[in-house]
Amino acid sequence: MFISLEGIDGSGKSTQARLLAERLRDRGHEVVLTREPGGSDGAEAIRRLLVEGDPDRWSAETEILLFNAARRDHLERTIRPALERGAWVVTDRFADSTRVYQGATRGELRGLVDRLHELVIGREPDRTIVIDMDPAAALKRGLARGSGEDRFEEFGLGFQEKLRAGFLALARDFPERVRVVDGMADAEIVAARVAEAL
Amino acid sequence: MFISLEGIDGSGKSTQARLLAERLRDRGHEVVLTREPGGSDGAEAIRRLLVEGDPDRWSAETEILLFNAARRDHLERTIRPALERGAWVVTDRFADSTRVYQGATRGELRGLVDRLHELVIGREPDRTIVIDMDPAAALKRGLARGSGEDRFEEFGLGFQEKLRAGFLALARDFPERVRVVDGMADAEIVAARVAEAL
Repeated sequence: MFISLEGIDGSGKSTQARLLAERLRDRGHEVVLTREPGGSDGAEAIRRLLVEGDPDRWSAETEILLFNAARRDHLERTIRPALERGAWVVTDRFADSTRVYQGATRGELRGLVDRLHELVIGREPDRTIVIDMDPAAALKRGLARGSGEDRFEEFGLGFQEKLRAGFLALARDFPERVRVVDGMADAEIVAARVAEAL
Repeated sequence: MFISLEGIDGSGKSTQARLLAERLRDRGHEVVLTREPGGSDGAEAIRRLLVEGDPDRWSAETEILLFNAARRDHLERTIRPALERGAWVVTDRFADSTRVYQGATRGELRGLVDRLHELVIGREPDRTIVIDMDPAAALKRGLARGSGEDRFEEFGLGFQEKLRAGFLALARDFPERVRVVDGMADAEIVAARVAEAL
């Protein structure tokens, strides 16, 4: 099974990805815990181009191409080989993040995001969990870290609210695949909700 | 005017790009002399990912995505601004190189190359000059440099012959835009042929 966790910055999805991997390992599964952008040597090199330097370093279109190049490498070198040997893959973000960050916040780019995905990725996770959280609450709980690396945090609360709406819309666009889990609770409680949603 | 020079490694196209830029400057034009992959800060950073490291670092599909990301940046940051202020642009390689290196040598990828180009580049040079040269002659003349950076030289003479056929086929695919110039002569003589072809 190939599982992705999605959500806004500070939703706790990285913690949940880790807890889910632990839970699956406890049941005896081999689990590959990975992330995007990144998750393979090549994709991590591309990630550095995306997260370092001036926020205006790339246009939205170039950024979408780089995300897809990284995702293609991640899929070929990490995800597919793991699935082929029977392991579970748990990834902190996948294509839905590009749909939401580049596509939902700049509507005119959604078509490009979708066509590129179809052309060079063409694979969805078996199940996607959106960890839902009010951005203001995430900020209040101190979950919205300033990692220094994440330029998406720079755009403020209004942008995060747009992202949240984008992630919730995924559950309507892909009802078979996407489940929304309420992230407003202790990590262990949210982890139980994630397990239940799977 | 936006002009590209194309051809196999060692065809002398970089020299010809420089000589053409000089000739145009002598006539009083502003000329931006550039190259691919690269030609803008971002594209040069992507170039380093493409030319450094293990030749198997990227799959053909990931490589095509990276070339298109670099090209999009090159187009946005260098080529379009230059053309808009009335300068001439002379580039050592453009999209035709991807068509030939990735598309013509691996036929099953030509569709991907074309669709990506249409989706994210959508612009051709006004005129393209293919500097034609027999790969064996290029090698004999010592033109096929071992720059250490160019992994395409590693594949040998048979591969170079396939590339040459691919570049010649461009003139048939794009008869209005592409001109073939015989590169088997002194650089100044070839430069005169290039000027005439324009």
